[in-house]
Amino acid sequence: MKIAVLPGDGIGTEIVDEAVKVLKVLDLKLELEFADVGGMAYDKHGHPLPEATLKLAKAADAILFGAVGDWKYDKLERQFRPEQAILGLRKNLGLFANFRPAICYEQLTHASSLKPELVAGLDILIIRELTGDIYFGQPRGRRTSPDGTFAGAEEAFDTMRYTRPEIERIAHVAFQAARKRGKKVTSVDKANVLETFQFWKDVVTEVGQQYPDVKLDHMYVDNAAMQLVKSPKSFDVVVTGNMFGDILSDEAAMLTGSIGMLPSGSMNASNQGLYEPSHGSAPDIAGKGVANPLATILSAAMMLRFSLNQPQAADRIESAVKDVLSQGLRTADIWSEGTRKVGTREMGEAVVAAI
Amino acid sequence: MKIAVLPGDGIGTEIVDEAVKVLKVLDLKLELEFADVGGMAYDKHGHPLPEATLKLAKAADAILFGAVGDWKYDKLERQFRPEQAILGLRKNLGLFANFRPAICYEQLTHASSLKPELVAGLDILIIRELTGDIYFGQPRGRRTSPDGTFAGAEEAFDTMRYTRPEIERIAHVAFQAARKRGKKVTSVDKANVLETFQFWKDVVTEVGQQYPDVKLDHMYVDNAAMQLVKSPKSFDVVVTGNMFGDILSDEAAMLTGSIGMLPSGSMNASNQGLYEPSHGSAPDIAGKGVANPLATILSAAMMLRFSLNQPQAADRIESAVKDVLSQGLRTADIWSEGTRKVGTREMGEAVVAAI
Ligand SMILES: CC(C)[C@H](C(=O)O)[C@@H](O)C(=O)O
Ligand SMILES: CC(C)[C@H](C(=O)O)[C@@H](O)C(=O)O
Repeated sequence: MKIAVLPGDGIGTEIVDEAVKVLKVLDLKLELEFADVGGMAYDKHGHPLPEATLKLAKAADAILFGAVGDWKYDKLERQFRPEQAILGLRKNLGLFANFRPAICYEQLTHASSLKPELVAGLDILIIRELTGDIYFGQPRGRRTSPDGTFAGAEEAFDTMRYTRPEIERIAHVAFQAARKRGKKVTSVDKANVLETFQFWKDVVTEVGQQYPDVKLDHMYVDNAAMQLVKSPKSFDVVVTGNMFGDILSDEAAMLTGSIGMLPSGSMNASNQGLYEPSHGSAPDIAGKGVANPLATILSAAMMLRFSLNQPQAADRIESAVKDVLSQGLRTADIWSEGTRKVGTREMGEAVVAAI
Repeated sequence: MKIAVLPGDGIGTEIVDEAVKVLKVLDLKLELEFADVGGMAYDKHGHPLPEATLKLAKAADAILFGAVGDWKYDKLERQFRPEQAILGLRKNLGLFANFRPAICYEQLTHASSLKPELVAGLDILIIRELTGDIYFGQPRGRRTSPDGTFAGAEEAFDTMRYTRPEIERIAHVAFQAARKRGKKVTSVDKANVLETFQFWKDVVTEVGQQYPDVKLDHMYVDNAAMQLVKSPKSFDVVVTGNMFGDILSDEAAMLTGSIGMLPSGSMNASNQGLYEPSHGSAPDIAGKGVANPLATILSAAMMLRFSLNQPQAADRIESAVKDVLSQGLRTADIWSEGTRKVGTREMGEAVVAAI
């Protein structure tokens, strides 16, 4: 089983290092191959997603990804910016199904902005479509406005769109995931305003008829942003488009208070997947050895479960993570009175020891 | 001064009734004219925004709006659904600047989902562009997919777009509002993915140079959704497009825990405006006399301040609302142990008495 390891920028290297240690101790036949991605790849090769990296990623069974981005690349032309690497990987590998669990660990309930009773035991799964919508729709660009009140003015535009097969396949993913959980899917749309999302709602409803055992609700995106705050535990699986999913999955992650703990996985039709922490590259703390490696370690577990068919190994990682939390070990982001503050490496090694 | 009063559906009638009582006791020369809007207008006239209503709205100095919508209209063709009335009013009157304050009243801090220390004293202003973006962009529709992986499949699409003058005018509104407050504007975009919002960011930056006394930050929408949860008080004025503003203004409102208290106003270039509560038509409690009329009463105050140039009258309403809260009066949505639960009418009359 071949894994492409792409640490990237900022804290990427540090956190991926610990996840690699964890993978190595499991004694599976894993072939790990490293490559450059993001801003550091631009610095070295003139492109955030070099040919060689893309080739490796395509050939691998799964990709373990750290993080990309740093303020110093902000002034680059868009096509050279670090985040283009991640958009390029998604598109080129067809990674259409993004799994973003929002889980509130018992020991970390206090870290949430929300009152403990609202988040204790929270376990929701946001499934975001990742290769369509306004992220990739054509045409897009700048031009002179052809019509309307401001005809002749400079304008910019993008195209939101979804085809039936794109909606169908992500809907199936959501219903199948719900079957293994709370048997409830909330499809988030803006059907009252957008043609794309009236269509989305119609197609999800049709697909839902094949899953009579799963309850399907529809919710407008503005309402979903509210209900996540008001009663996050009322959700089970949330399925939505690329743009709304970007916003809601981050909102939900932050509600848990411990985004440093949350993994994510993006899969294609052949279960090849890219796994990365839900948080970013945190350039402000890069190189200081204080970043939380647990989201990346849990992403490695997700990779074993979803792309490499090693559920036992995934279980071992996940219970080791619970163990270290129970031992009272905490990185700075989740530290509280009465627990022991540790650095990135100490946390990674504690997980290795617990395995 | 002529005010078009459009109560609409659900709790609309009850809450607008109380706001009208408050307006009447102020002893200003106000001419109030009522008209039908939303689902009830469709029932009576076959259209959610009848000609006569639109004509009245255009002729008025300001519009006091209740709420529209009910599940029973969900199956109607989109053009006849209640919410089309509000989109039609925005577009026809050019109401491009939506003011959505998110304020946490001292006495209601406990009602928030968030820990009290995070929301106590919260006072942020979300300014949402309301007549552009993907809400109104053309082309939009359903068709057979012309290209790409799913060529030939059924698809739906919408167009996001902004012209330079549209961005400039809302940016000026935001900077001017910030000058009267905390002197900080956070412009929310998705410049890393969307052409429209790279343009947005460029134009807002340019306009910002005319306001050297106001600090301008830029934030991606996904990050904004997180920061609102993590540290809402770090914001002062937030300015963003129609779609992102829809989501973020509702998220922010819910963070306060008392959306039943939050007014909103939508203004055009001649200060004509539509004023409505931030909450919806709540068909589940309609007719029961339990809805909170304070958001509508505070919307009437906003109307007096922004469109009718009666700041003293607005002040009188706002301090009367604070008075009734201090007296311990609460409708069901904001009630807590030790306060007195009152209905819609009793709350409205208490405000009248306090004036
Ligand atoms: C970096 C950016 C392009 C990306 C996105 O918007 O998808 C990120 O926010 C994410 O959610 O993975
Ligand atoms: C009803 C709907 C069309 C409307 C919108 O999306 O603008 C509403 O959500 C709002 O925010 O006023």
